[in-house]
Amino acid sequence: MNVLVIGANGQIGTHLVNQLQENKDHEVTAMVRKEEQLEELKQRGINAVLANLEDSVDDIANAMKGADAVVFTAGSGGSTGADKTLLIDLDGAVKSVEAAEKTGVKRFVMISAFQAHNRDSWADNPIKHYMVAKHFADEKLTESSLDYTIIRPGGLLNDPAIGKIEASENLERGSIPREDVASTVVEVLDAKNTFHKGFDLITGETSIKDAVGKI
Amino acid sequence: MNVLVIGANGQIGTHLVNQLQENKDHEVTAMVRKEEQLEELKQRGINAVLANLEDSVDDIANAMKGADAVVFTAGSGGSTGADKTLLIDLDGAVKSVEAAEKTGVKRFVMISAFQAHNRDSWADNPIKHYMVAKHFADEKLTESSLDYTIIRPGGLLNDPAIGKIEASENLERGSIPREDVASTVVEVLDAKNTFHKGFDLITGETSIKDAVGKI
Repeated sequence: MNVLVIGANGQIGTHLVNQLQENKDHEVTAMVRKEEQLEELKQRGINAVLANLEDSVDDIANAMKGADAVVFTAGSGGSTGADKTLLIDLDGAVKSVEAAEKTGVKRFVMISAFQAHNRDSWADNPIKHYMVAKHFADEKLTESSLDYTIIRPGGLLNDPAIGKIEASENLERGSIPREDVASTVVEVLDAKNTFHKGFDLITGETSIKDAVGKI
Repeated sequence: MNVLVIGANGQIGTHLVNQLQENKDHEVTAMVRKEEQLEELKQRGINAVLANLEDSVDDIANAMKGADAVVFTAGSGGSTGADKTLLIDLDGAVKSVEAAEKTGVKRFVMISAFQAHNRDSWADNPIKHYMVAKHFADEKLTESSLDYTIIRPGGLLNDPAIGKIEASENLERGSIPREDVASTVVEVLDAKNTFHKGFDLITGETSIKDAVGKI
């Protein structure tokens, strides 16, 4: 499968690109924003394409040409203002969904946020505004024509992979290494049972393969 | 008609509450966030109710009881951060839509922003992130079961009313006194021809009554 990773230079994105690059079943293309990121990837033998989520739907659609699946794991991050949360995490995500529809890419995997579907759970969340952005981006995806999967990981860790997860529509808060989120995406990409579904994701007791198979 | 004005203490909201209060065809209730605003309105003989757009849908729905129509003219304003744009202008608006559906209020008039429906027009807009929030709030309203009207005024002025407007799906940028926006809302409230429509609004050559009749 030809997989375009949006946000390839991010912390989950980096793991995901590396895993897909080593996987014989997939061809990965890394979508990045900066020329130097593009060059660095190409020097490592990784396909890469330049596009900015603040550009038009058509510009993003151009970057998707030839892709069978798109993974959205971009984020404006904590070091920019909430204006970028609106422009990247919300509108950039929705433009990516529209670009996928326009290009004919059917498969779309969204990296969202824990409990983003459940407004009642945000009350005491210090980044409640971020939850709003993720919530409405996810809703636009569910309303699209795409075969989507929405992955809502708990607290993200840079710890080494554990390789065991829990994945369900609603979970009690937990955490998970970013590397395991990336591995879950790889398992989800081909899994038809994950089409048109969203799930919370934390470290658990089940192998990633088995847990994804039971979603 | 019993009209609930959300954002009644805002600049358009203040005009609108005053106009509706003087209008024999309508009963107005002002929804405000602060106790002192509530007291001030009541002392002026205006019905008022306390609710916060950061509260739950149920809390907002409680404030809507008995209303035939809701006008959303709240905004976080330019003095707070973009996190409040997400919490108020986007999520607060969508929660108001959901509350109206829950309460059985059918008529919903949204004060949006000029060209909020047209992403291609935002490129050079210094408050592009605000346009994103208004855009997605408007989209959720159009997807709702409500008899909505979306009013997208151009540059808002504190000048005295002119009483003549131009209203159409797409207009070249212009400006309009806030008082004329309020008068347009009053005309729109009963006008069935404005159901399920959105329009840009600027000062023009046509009386408000005639312009609204032709939408």
